[in-house]
Amino acid sequence: MNDQEAFAIAVEEAEMGYNEGGVPIGAALVSRDGKLLGRGHNMRVQKGSAIHHGETSALENSGRLPASAYKGATMYTTLSPCDMCTGACILYGISRVVIGENKTFLGGEAYLKQRGIEVVILENKKMQDLMEKFISEKPEIWNEDIGEEERVHSKELK
Amino acid sequence: MNDQEAFAIAVEEAEMGYNEGGVPIGAALVSRDGKLLGRGHNMRVQKGSAIHHGETSALENSGRLPASAYKGATMYTTLSPCDMCTGACILYGISRVVIGENKTFLGGEAYLKQRGIEVVILENKKMQDLMEKFISEKPEIWNEDIGEEERVHSKELK
Repeated sequence: MNDQEAFAIAVEEAEMGYNEGGVPIGAALVSRDGKLLGRGHNMRVQKGSAIHHGETSALENSGRLPASAYKGATMYTTLSPCDMCTGACILYGISRVVIGENKTFLGGEAYLKQRGIEVVILENKKMQDLMEKFISEKPEIWNEDIGEEERVHSKELK
Repeated sequence: MNDQEAFAIAVEEAEMGYNEGGVPIGAALVSRDGKLLGRGHNMRVQKGSAIHHGETSALENSGRLPASAYKGATMYTTLSPCDMCTGACILYGISRVVIGENKTFLGGEAYLKQRGIEVVILENKKMQDLMEKFISEKPEIWNEDIGEEERVHSKELK
């Protein structure tokens, strides 16, 4: 599958998350030869989870894999990855991270590049709108998800 | 509870993991006022998991918490944290990471410090011995857990 098809899966996951009442961030992990290894979305609300973010859920749903499986792989994610998900991509030696948008949240993109990972930003308006909607509806869940205490993100957005 | 008591829980978790046939790394998350928030160990083998490391399991088992709960908290871990677990500690604003040993694996300690987190290394021989034993017994599981392909760690040790 190509970038467009793979990103569409991440979007589908994000929308699934929103419809479940959760944090609408989705991801898909695709091998260097274009095969889907795993897909997933943030499960903070659904599983009461602190570690099942979009990207880590996609990794978890890919199951146990040898290091060779991640080589040349791309992580597609609807939102700029937080520090944990940034670290997860680095740990497994994922080669490329394709990000839907980084306007509502800017994560570890600089560190990904510093560690030799290619970063692509799609500036996807649909995913930005979905996050803005979610943040304005449930700011306290969003703050919890990114370990923030007082910042009310909905006010910062416009 | 104090550092010694908290680290003993991480050790207990690591030994539990070893006895289950898994990767023997354990962790405990303790709040600034000395209360245990959660404890856990690596579940790669037990759950077929790519994301349940020692530290992330302790975070997961702590459940959903507001950012304030992590403030001033200490993560006790038997082994130097990998890039994912390093990122998880940064995400949640954990203040201090106490590490059993970093001889069998050196993780993101420098990055933790760079991001303002206090790092303490205990140089615990018992945990080093346990990891060396595990790595020599199951090098392929260990390599998988740290996203390594060819390095045979058992040969590099000692």
